[in-house]
Amino acid sequence: MNTAKPSFPLNAWYAAAYDVEVGRSLLPRTICKQKIVMFRRLDGTLAALEDACWHRLLPLSMGSLDGDELTCGYHGLVFNAAGRCTHMPSQETLNPSACVRAFPVAERHRLIWIWPGDPALADVSKIPDFHWNDDPAWAGDGKVIPVKCDYRLVIDNLMDLTHETFVHGSSIGSREVAEAPFVATHNERSATVTRWMEGINAPPFWAGQIKHARQYDGPVDRWQIIRFEAPSTVTIDVGVAVSGTGAAQGDRSQGVNGYVLNTITPETDSTCHYFWAFARNYCLGEQRLTHELREGVARIFREDEHILEAQQIAIDEHPDHRFYNLNIDAGSMWARRLIEQMIERERPAAASATIPIRRAA
Amino acid sequence: MNTAKPSFPLNAWYAAAYDVEVGRSLLPRTICKQKIVMFRRLDGTLAALEDACWHRLLPLSMGSLDGDELTCGYHGLVFNAAGRCTHMPSQETLNPSACVRAFPVAERHRLIWIWPGDPALADVSKIPDFHWNDDPAWAGDGKVIPVKCDYRLVIDNLMDLTHETFVHGSSIGSREVAEAPFVATHNERSATVTRWMEGINAPPFWAGQIKHARQYDGPVDRWQIIRFEAPSTVTIDVGVAVSGTGAAQGDRSQGVNGYVLNTITPETDSTCHYFWAFARNYCLGEQRLTHELREGVARIFREDEHILEAQQIAIDEHPDHRFYNLNIDAGSMWARRLIEQMIERERPAAASATIPIRRAA
Amino acid sequence: MNTAKPSFPLNAWYAAAYDVEVGRSLLPRTICKQKIVMFRRLDGTLAALEDACWHRLLPLSMGSLDGDELTCGYHGLVFNAAGRCTHMPSQETLNPSACVRAFPVAERHRLIWIWPGDPALADVSKIPDFHWNDDPAWAGDGKVIPVKCDYRLVIDNLMDLTHETFVHGSSIGSREVAEAPFVATHNERSATVTRWMEGINAPPFWAGQIKHARQYDGPVDRWQIIRFEAPSTVTIDVGVAVSGTGAAQGDRSQGVNGYVLNTITPETDSTCHYFWAFARNYCLGEQRLTHELREGVARIFREDEHILEAQQIAIDEHPDHRFYNLNIDAGSMWARRLIEQMIERERPAAASATIPIRRAA
Repeated sequence: MNTAKPSFPLNAWYAAAYDVEVGRSLLPRTICKQKIVMFRRLDGTLAALEDACWHRLLPLSMGSLDGDELTCGYHGLVFNAAGRCTHMPSQETLNPSACVRAFPVAERHRLIWIWPGDPALADVSKIPDFHWNDDPAWAGDGKVIPVKCDYRLVIDNLMDLTHETFVHGSSIGSREVAEAPFVATHNERSATVTRWMEGINAPPFWAGQIKHARQYDGPVDRWQIIRFEAPSTVTIDVGVAVSGTGAAQGDRSQGVNGYVLNTITPETDSTCHYFWAFARNYCLGEQRLTHELREGVARIFREDEHILEAQQIAIDEHPDHRFYNLNIDAGSMWARRLIEQMIERERPAAASATIPIRRAA
Repeated sequence: MNTAKPSFPLNAWYAAAYDVEVGRSLLPRTICKQKIVMFRRLDGTLAALEDACWHRLLPLSMGSLDGDELTCGYHGLVFNAAGRCTHMPSQETLNPSACVRAFPVAERHRLIWIWPGDPALADVSKIPDFHWNDDPAWAGDGKVIPVKCDYRLVIDNLMDLTHETFVHGSSIGSREVAEAPFVATHNERSATVTRWMEGINAPPFWAGQIKHARQYDGPVDRWQIIRFEAPSTVTIDVGVAVSGTGAAQGDRSQGVNGYVLNTITPETDSTCHYFWAFARNYCLGEQRLTHELREGVARIFREDEHILEAQQIAIDEHPDHRFYNLNIDAGSMWARRLIEQMIERERPAAASATIPIRRAA
Repeated sequence: MNTAKPSFPLNAWYAAAYDVEVGRSLLPRTICKQKIVMFRRLDGTLAALEDACWHRLLPLSMGSLDGDELTCGYHGLVFNAAGRCTHMPSQETLNPSACVRAFPVAERHRLIWIWPGDPALADVSKIPDFHWNDDPAWAGDGKVIPVKCDYRLVIDNLMDLTHETFVHGSSIGSREVAEAPFVATHNERSATVTRWMEGINAPPFWAGQIKHARQYDGPVDRWQIIRFEAPSTVTIDVGVAVSGTGAAQGDRSQGVNGYVLNTITPETDSTCHYFWAFARNYCLGEQRLTHELREGVARIFREDEHILEAQQIAIDEHPDHRFYNLNIDAGSMWARRLIEQMIERERPAAASATIPIRRAA
């Protein structure tokens, strides 16, 4: 028996693909260590099956899609979208056990979400809120990038933006991000870190945005409101406004506002699929700006990717390392605790009884 | 002690090379997890030695062949074709233990065969029959390809040709192969699967052959007679004849006949050397046809290779998977049982006593 | 607990870099399985720190050097050259445990030496003597090459030069090296192998040197005096003189003399950094000759590298192999014993009490 503690809960919705990635062909992807094949039925609805034929384990994604059914590319067993085998070669009686697992799957806010855990618990009302991704009041676009690290390292990274100063100094980082005070709060399912930097010079990225949108280039009030939702979604409300016009008090009318939408799906214990998008509430019709922001943010995230993969290698080399937390880690500490609680709740009673549950003081 | 069950018997002849691959140079190859170096003596006869110097383990294949002796490329120890050390640098007395293992080796039917087990049991009369490979009544050629899978997956593949329909649809596959009835028989050392498809349209490959050889393009009677000989040889008698001229009753005079010769040698538990050839009994003098058939069959086998390697990866990811058998698996089930019986017979009495031997019902 | 025996002692000076490799940037290198970052302070003196930030383990070598301090490239923690954290983002109180390990480091004879063991024992008087490397009576140059083998295989290789005959036949090898008698001696810290070959034809390399330096091309007296100093330094006094002019008796005035300087630093248990240089006492001002010798020796060492890496692979495949020693292994046997004694002296009393110490007879 493998007694290693899981690194992720299974009873959760995880982003599996962008909507445009899944069509009338077979898309294989590993989600939470499970190989899954996704496709759309003739009516456009989604199906997600275990990507291994019941008979000899060949990935079904190597077969073909005929109507709403998959034909295995080796011996021709046919499976319907519910995972049941509907045809076997050279025999008329089908083994009643002949099926592959079907996963609950839903499409919302431009992402395809999969529930790798108990299907009876899959409640679509629990899909993380990414409405900025297809809300007409916002414009934006995103990508999915493979990152060779535990998905929780990406969350650590997002929950503490002081790293912008050191990792992203040429775009969004500045001394203030590392030094301005912040407030961290949490509840049962989410954790929030809020940082206001008032009367500062905007860093290059934001200076460019407010100048483009409002022809303004003076001092700004800048905000970062990071909201984590367990197990792996982080939405960040970011922006700058003309300094002194009341943004911190709720009037953002003189500002530019964006949402950095992030949801990270474990592929294995040490690799993940990082889905992100950047949506803005200004210059909505400028397709060039959408393109430029998507590629600009992608460049920034590549800087993180470099750091995260190096960190994963270092962690693998120090398996028993005990990490110390700094003040700046308050947000990620809470995120980790909420993830851990979800994992603990899924463990068999006997197992969790022998392991003391770590709780926040 | 490694108690994992071996995946192959050692007391058997395994193809190690095509005859033309071994000459007056040193050919290294791993056979049944043993590194072996092969060469020909001055008189053309073969030698096969353990490919690791007795002194410091450097592969002898990195040294040089001088007459009938090998000189190690590091410190110059010399070994004769029987594996005995005949010279050491800077000393006159040779350590009597100084030798490397020599393997029984034989050349037959255009292949070099090695016996990795107990040399006392190596009986050349047990070399698998590949006579079509150098019989003047037949013409053909073959190749050896490395495949990243357990050699038994290749045997499974060959013992059930329904996969032709799904894997090789553009050449030899057709609906009939997946649906026509077949007969599976076996004895102590071999298993046979026979399938006749009478009065059908020939698939592209065979349509081309019978048209070329006999200027015929009507319906055919097609046969596939697959014969497995433990542990890893499969000869397949294949062909088509003008429909209704009695081929199924023994008169193949109006047909074209080929033999697909296959023998698969374990390299490790999850990789193998796949030796194959295709021999035909028509248009014997056409060198162009020989070349075309060799490359055509090679293309078909690359389709299998793709499937087999994906299947091995899937098996490695599901180490405890229990496989279900379909009707079409009758031939490979028997092949697997015969292999298992050979492996069991080689296990120490104590070991096999504690493991129930699985037998056919 | 990992009870595998260490392959190297820690209380020793190991070459970590050539002097020119370390400057005002961050040089990462793994020494004895420890990731280390090296740099020079503003005053040119050296610092060597553990290459992993105390906070989240990111390699400090991915950060930046500011004055005499390192700033981590992730969250901006700052460390001084002694490894103490001097700044943390967003907080004024520094955790007193916040430091990374600093290693004793010294610069001598054109190499940077690091002591990976107990700093209290680091005595610079124990740095191996490489004075030929910066002595005005000698001229030369060297390189560092990564080799994928246990550092002890390189030492075995250097302690027995009979391999020159088989590995380096086109340059320095000749029959005499494999057959001439030699004398092996040792004391508590070093082992020496001396071989004189008098009245022989010089091999191509030395024939070229004595002809160039002394316009002589007759028979020579050749010497190889190999001196090992535990744990991993080998200096080889080599040369040829006009035959019969008394070189073996101490008068080398009619000869050409070189020192092959070698020190090998474990990177992991199966990889190493091989530092070498070749220094000569003739034609000191010829920069072209220095260049030519460095590249010529590098070519010879690449022949060894090929052998050593193949040997390491073979050893990994035969983990329980028991090696037999030949007469030619006398020098490396002593070197191995001296290394083993250093390793044993570092083991906890309880551990070594249960393991019989192997000693020379």
